[in-house]
Amino acid sequence: MLTKNKITAELSKILPKDNILSTLEECYVYSQDGTNTRTSDKLPDIVIFPETVEEIQKIMRFANSNNIPVTGRGAGTNLIGACLPDFGGIVMNFSKMNNILEVNKTDMTAVVQPGVVIGDLQKELDKVGLFFPPDPSNLRVSTIGGAIAQSAGGPKTFKYGTTKDYILGLKIVLADGTLMTTGGNTIKNATGYPLTQLFIGSEGTLGIVVEANLKLIPKPESVRVMLAYFDNIQDATLSVNNIIDSKIFPSTIDFMDKNSITTVEKFYPANLKTDKEAALIIEIDGSKESVKIDGDKLKDILLASNATDITISNTEEEYEKIWTARRSSFAAAAKLRPDVVTDDVIVPRSKLPDLITGINEICSKYNLETCVVGHVGDGNVHPQIALNLENKEEHKNYINAKKEIYNLTISLGGTLSAEHGIGAEKKQYLPMAIDNTALEYMKKIKYIFDPKNILNPNKIF
Amino acid sequence: MLTKNKITAELSKILPKDNILSTLEECYVYSQDGTNTRTSDKLPDIVIFPETVEEIQKIMRFANSNNIPVTGRGAGTNLIGACLPDFGGIVMNFSKMNNILEVNKTDMTAVVQPGVVIGDLQKELDKVGLFFPPDPSNLRVSTIGGAIAQSAGGPKTFKYGTTKDYILGLKIVLADGTLMTTGGNTIKNATGYPLTQLFIGSEGTLGIVVEANLKLIPKPESVRVMLAYFDNIQDATLSVNNIIDSKIFPSTIDFMDKNSITTVEKFYPANLKTDKEAALIIEIDGSKESVKIDGDKLKDILLASNATDITISNTEEEYEKIWTARRSSFAAAAKLRPDVVTDDVIVPRSKLPDLITGINEICSKYNLETCVVGHVGDGNVHPQIALNLENKEEHKNYINAKKEIYNLTISLGGTLSAEHGIGAEKKQYLPMAIDNTALEYMKKIKYIFDPKNILNPNKIF
Repeated sequence: MLTKNKITAELSKILPKDNILSTLEECYVYSQDGTNTRTSDKLPDIVIFPETVEEIQKIMRFANSNNIPVTGRGAGTNLIGACLPDFGGIVMNFSKMNNILEVNKTDMTAVVQPGVVIGDLQKELDKVGLFFPPDPSNLRVSTIGGAIAQSAGGPKTFKYGTTKDYILGLKIVLADGTLMTTGGNTIKNATGYPLTQLFIGSEGTLGIVVEANLKLIPKPESVRVMLAYFDNIQDATLSVNNIIDSKIFPSTIDFMDKNSITTVEKFYPANLKTDKEAALIIEIDGSKESVKIDGDKLKDILLASNATDITISNTEEEYEKIWTARRSSFAAAAKLRPDVVTDDVIVPRSKLPDLITGINEICSKYNLETCVVGHVGDGNVHPQIALNLENKEEHKNYINAKKEIYNLTISLGGTLSAEHGIGAEKKQYLPMAIDNTALEYMKKIKYIFDPKNILNPNKIF
Repeated sequence: MLTKNKITAELSKILPKDNILSTLEECYVYSQDGTNTRTSDKLPDIVIFPETVEEIQKIMRFANSNNIPVTGRGAGTNLIGACLPDFGGIVMNFSKMNNILEVNKTDMTAVVQPGVVIGDLQKELDKVGLFFPPDPSNLRVSTIGGAIAQSAGGPKTFKYGTTKDYILGLKIVLADGTLMTTGGNTIKNATGYPLTQLFIGSEGTLGIVVEANLKLIPKPESVRVMLAYFDNIQDATLSVNNIIDSKIFPSTIDFMDKNSITTVEKFYPANLKTDKEAALIIEIDGSKESVKIDGDKLKDILLASNATDITISNTEEEYEKIWTARRSSFAAAAKLRPDVVTDDVIVPRSKLPDLITGINEICSKYNLETCVVGHVGDGNVHPQIALNLENKEEHKNYINAKKEIYNLTISLGGTLSAEHGIGAEKKQYLPMAIDNTALEYMKKIKYIFDPKNILNPNKIF
């Protein structure tokens, strides 16, 4: 590989000086993301902030000719090391390609650059009555590019699906610098293989997404969220069946276990009931009238399902208060110990009580403090394990517990990631979850798009 | 290639006699599908009805070793020649693999064989309050396998998306007989590349789908459909904007033009108003109360949008009556002349008035009788051109008109197929709609899965 100086000199011919970082300190910053348990100490040789597709094409031609790794980066909120430059090279940051290029109200579509922050997009769409549902919990900073790379979901997945359900087309710069357009601005497309879909969740290993066509839906007129407590996890998960039986289709059915409730209340007091075993956060949306009617029905169903206490948001303030408590769970768990590791496992919903109970048993066996939150409607939980990673004993216990959690997840018919991806952190476990033949074909697909393995190497497999 | 007799002799070692057809008459039947303008007169050498995955694996090993084409077939309702054996060989019919293997109410998932008829599945799911939304108009006969192959949609796409949004995992027998499992039974999956998605719309050219995991949703408690007439197409399409502005999210917004209305009324009288220029068929769903409220709102919006006459279904009988009229459009158009060709083009919705007007102008220029129906909410129309294909002049006019319609569609930002696929009929036009680089990578993907090109050859490209 070329030296850092040579790479910097060459990229300086393509990019203005202000769009290049290369000091040790600057490179150190971009050797980190939201992942606490990183597998590599490698620094990038250079961090660049392209502003045009043409620049990216030139950069990729240069990188491909010289076998220089290129790792795309959105907001760096990733939790499994998916945007870390494990082999050095170029970190390509999209924060200067953050324009909403078009919002078409009639077509219910938008065209965006990869660096657009999801929360900013939602605010813009709100103004014209449109809605892009994927809402990862860090949506105030996380980007569309990152959501596409990691197949991001969020609380609203239960009703609205994930990022993959809202991407109609992509512009992608391939490893060799070629610009490829997939899909387009139509709501449906059965014209050739669905290449667009192939890139969603590919973690920047197949190409650099430089533009995306989004499908939007009408923004629901009204939303309400309710917080319901339960004396045991089984009642909480069984109540979801009763909700579905009632033909109500909430947008969100999220979950917090006792440890989460207690931890949030400890660090971000919100009048949560810390004597309860579990809480559900249920959001419904629709017309003002139907939300009122469904809210009343839902309250009755929850009471009949042994919910012991129910709060319903009647104002925007109350709505925000409930969501702030749920969204604080990560930050609160992070205050318990020096480090927190958030995982992302998913099982068919009927297996959720087994998974949650199992996770708590495993963590208890290894003396690890855990808060379990998640999207119970989808069978997706995020165990948040609080520990000191520098303590060798705790670190070893964490590694063992993690492997047992994955074994349990797989044995329950689940898989290793629902919405965070595989990155560098989970790649060693991938064969537990994926058929050998499928893995072999994934590698063949990687090879045709990136024969020199310069695109985000060391990720997924 | 081996002779017909040799192929039959070898397959007779794998399959029971009753599951093999090979006489000329039998082979002739399976050389046809719903396509009127077929590009090939080729008969299959043999038609087989496998019952197990193991049989299919053995058949594929034999076919691959001997370079014998294999074309999968569901109900044969395809309209673009996607399941015709253009190079002879084996037609693999899935009508004996039509079992619903599992319906899990709590998980809201099902596992099905490819030959399951969509309408049958919906009836079974109805019993437990669940719903699989894709509903191609021939759903009483068409199969899940066909829907996966062609990325089928249907009227409910507007709210609920297409087949791709409801497939969680697949079991696929590859060209060489290897069984590959992709995805699984979890609602979300960010574990490796989304191979499942790659197969949806791949028209049997990448592998033989032998099992599918379906995502289901709660069945809405109540539905209502309304039929609204307009004096011009612009008012009809503009009313869709007003509906979306009102924050109502109908499950269906379908369209019939004057010719469709008149033709349906002529052959399947349903008291349609034949003096109107356009009709919208709008379905709403949700709780009983919200459907009542939204129905009233919608009526006001439609009246304010210059709808001149509105019928709302109040009973199941009225509901069926409106839908039967809409669904009769194809059969009615087929009675106008010896043949009818149904196309499938899509544009961003704002371009729909231009597309519909343009289609009518083009057909008029070429003296072709056309009924235009479609899913106006999605920007997707199905021009139904009635003609005598054996009349050389008409046939030539049709070919010219078709090309002009595709040119118009592309110039309006649209694409060649929304929900029928490309098959053999549209493959020559594919480069109009797809980026050269994307096409090249599609071909590379085809090559890694099927290097001998035995899987449904002559389709897509």
